[in-house]
Amino acid sequence: MSTIAPPANPEADPRVKAVFDDIRATRRTDFINNMWRYLAFDPTLLEQTWAEVKRVMATPSAIDPLTKEMVYITASILNGCSYCVHSHTAAATAKGMTAAQHAELLSIIALAAKTNQLATGLQVPVDAAFERG
Amino acid sequence: MSTIAPPANPEADPRVKAVFDDIRATRRTDFINNMWRYLAFDPTLLEQTWAEVKRVMATPSAIDPLTKEMVYITASILNGCSYCVHSHTAAATAKGMTAAQHAELLSIIALAAKTNQLATGLQVPVDAAFERG
Amino acid sequence: MSTIAPPANPEADPRVKAVFDDIRATRRTDFINNMWRYLAFDPTLLEQTWAEVKRVMATPSAIDPLTKEMVYITASILNGCSYCVHSHTAAATAKGMTAAQHAELLSIIALAAKTNQLATGLQVPVDAAFERG
Amino acid sequence: MSTIAPPANPEADPRVKAVFDDIRATRRTDFINNMWRYLAFDPTLLEQTWAEVKRVMATPSAIDPLTKEMVYITASILNGCSYCVHSHTAAATAKGMTAAQHAELLSIIALAAKTNQLATGLQVPVDAAFERG
Amino acid sequence: MSTIAPPANPEADPRVKAVFDDIRATRRTDFINNMWRYLAFDPTLLEQTWAEVKRVMATPSAIDPLTKEMVYITASILNGCSYCVHSHTAAATAKGMTAAQHAELLSIIALAAKTNQLATGLQVPVDAAFERG
Amino acid sequence: MSTIAPPANPEADPRVKAVFDDIRATRRTDFINNMWRYLAFDPTLLEQTWAEVKRVMATPSAIDPLTKEMVYITASILNGCSYCVHSHTAAATAKGMTAAQHAELLSIIALAAKTNQLATGLQVPVDAAFERG
Repeated sequence: MSTIAPPANPEADPRVKAVFDDIRATRRTDFINNMWRYLAFDPTLLEQTWAEVKRVMATPSAIDPLTKEMVYITASILNGCSYCVHSHTAAATAKGMTAAQHAELLSIIALAAKTNQLATGLQVPVDAAFERG
Repeated sequence: MSTIAPPANPEADPRVKAVFDDIRATRRTDFINNMWRYLAFDPTLLEQTWAEVKRVMATPSAIDPLTKEMVYITASILNGCSYCVHSHTAAATAKGMTAAQHAELLSIIALAAKTNQLATGLQVPVDAAFERG
Repeated sequence: MSTIAPPANPEADPRVKAVFDDIRATRRTDFINNMWRYLAFDPTLLEQTWAEVKRVMATPSAIDPLTKEMVYITASILNGCSYCVHSHTAAATAKGMTAAQHAELLSIIALAAKTNQLATGLQVPVDAAFERG
Repeated sequence: MSTIAPPANPEADPRVKAVFDDIRATRRTDFINNMWRYLAFDPTLLEQTWAEVKRVMATPSAIDPLTKEMVYITASILNGCSYCVHSHTAAATAKGMTAAQHAELLSIIALAAKTNQLATGLQVPVDAAFERG
Repeated sequence: MSTIAPPANPEADPRVKAVFDDIRATRRTDFINNMWRYLAFDPTLLEQTWAEVKRVMATPSAIDPLTKEMVYITASILNGCSYCVHSHTAAATAKGMTAAQHAELLSIIALAAKTNQLATGLQVPVDAAFERG
Repeated sequence: MSTIAPPANPEADPRVKAVFDDIRATRRTDFINNMWRYLAFDPTLLEQTWAEVKRVMATPSAIDPLTKEMVYITASILNGCSYCVHSHTAAATAKGMTAAQHAELLSIIALAAKTNQLATGLQVPVDAAFERG
């Protein structure tokens, strides 16, 4: 399926093991999803990616965790990343997203895609009132 | 700038006037932004687009208004719609988005774009645990 | 505006002049739009691009000229190419696209963008009936 | 495969049954493709989506049915929606698209993608002649 | 899987056979990958596509062959073409791309995706120093 | 132009000044381009973004500096980021990209966009020979 062969026994590498252990501790689960198993082909890329995901997504901040996941789902759909749509829909569900919220989220994304294309098709000029600097 | 010439006096058309009046009443402002002034070149398209925007974005629902705007900004950035990035950033700010939330929103979108491309580049297979039906 | 400096006097190069002459003859106009004036920075790229545009867009074929332009506008909007949205909307108009057809074209593109994102968000599996080989 | 579990017996819900019945009547077939079976997880989203698809795609208008499908295929390819590429290629074929037209459609989309990226790479400024308002 | 049925015996058509023979000679392999087997449904499209791929990718030029493949991988990821990500990652590996270079390439693409979205989200104006013409 | 008001005197903030000083030292120039002046609205986002750009783009590694910029240009074109196309074309030129290489780079991107859309339009199945794990 993939373009690289993931390591057969990734945790034999202590750098990979350290990241996987931190994922387990941060998420309070033994499950390590494929994204991390495949990124383990390059321990540096794995470490950097997890550090950023942990900092942005798993640290209390000005945006609540469920909203963060909804934003992530939106980006993943628009970037056409099938893997990420699956993993972040699962993450949002784990954080409490209801079926009604899921349907509504999709409605907003669908509407945005629609008006985005209308504005691009018409090449509507930006209102001066919207410009900040 | 645009690909169509917007009507010079759009509210001379009663269908356009009805939509503009509803926009003013719904948003409690006299300001009609360019998106609607340009869509007025086709009253049917204007009516349908506004009806959907009003239903999805201006009706109380399972997702709060600020989160909706954050999702809309995300889609607009990913769809590359300069007009929509401007208009929905302004809308989110009007609904209380702080500078800290704006910066954080951009961080999430940037991280998602990054991991989306990594997953696509590696063609990571979807975990069975993420599949629903 | 651009990332290259277009030649000040492009037709001083006989290869460029030959392409510009063919554009004028094919389109029956003296107007050479900026796309060609900028591509003239590399005569080979100019020649190859024009040859393909002429073959695909200006040769009688199984799809009528206006439909071709509508398809081109659609791709240009989705690829986020502001220049191309402008030039191909102008071309479609020159080939008879009415305002009603323009509005309808945008409605189809907007609807497609919407259902495309819904299908991607849901990760709807392809029906066996749609697979050919 | 998907991010939601579609209803096992969707037509047990009278709102879903009404939509499916209308799809069958409009398309004169008993076949309900997966898009609708999955959207049935949220009857409101199903009703709204079908109503718009029926209005835009299945109502006589200023653009002929085959051209509409060609535009839809184009958007679906550019939005990277595998499901939609399949379903609308099937729909276009059902409406008479020949293999020659299919190959030519792909040629136009491929050429547009090419010149779109060239114009974006060069950042060609829009000709004044193309601006309408 | 696909939207067309590829010819069962494509080389029965002499035009297809000529292209396949040239692919084998140019690449010094008997392997004809699916892209060409499917494009064979339309010999003209096959001939034109191969001619351009051969000219751009298989002819000595100002950019070395491995860099060309890295650029191709980048475009394929961003265009969301799973097939092309696979085929060009294989091609780059055949031309000597190491695992370290592959990981680094993905890091650059991921970083670009990130800063691209930040610049679009902020709508940063282009510096005058970057404009050429 | 932008969606935020950049700080009028960004270096009054010592964190911003430290980043700007490091940009000047790393790039051996006094010029600070707008991307950094606008990101300065959030010093944390500025610091994190610069740290990653410096690490990936300005540190000797397995891919040479000019190739890195060509990959960055490619991603920026495909992501439709006008700012980034400008800034990275300027950076590539500063690192020695010739006009011939620029034209050839655009040819590769254009060809990739073309074949990417053909493969997506045909939904060509991935050859088993290309799958790694």
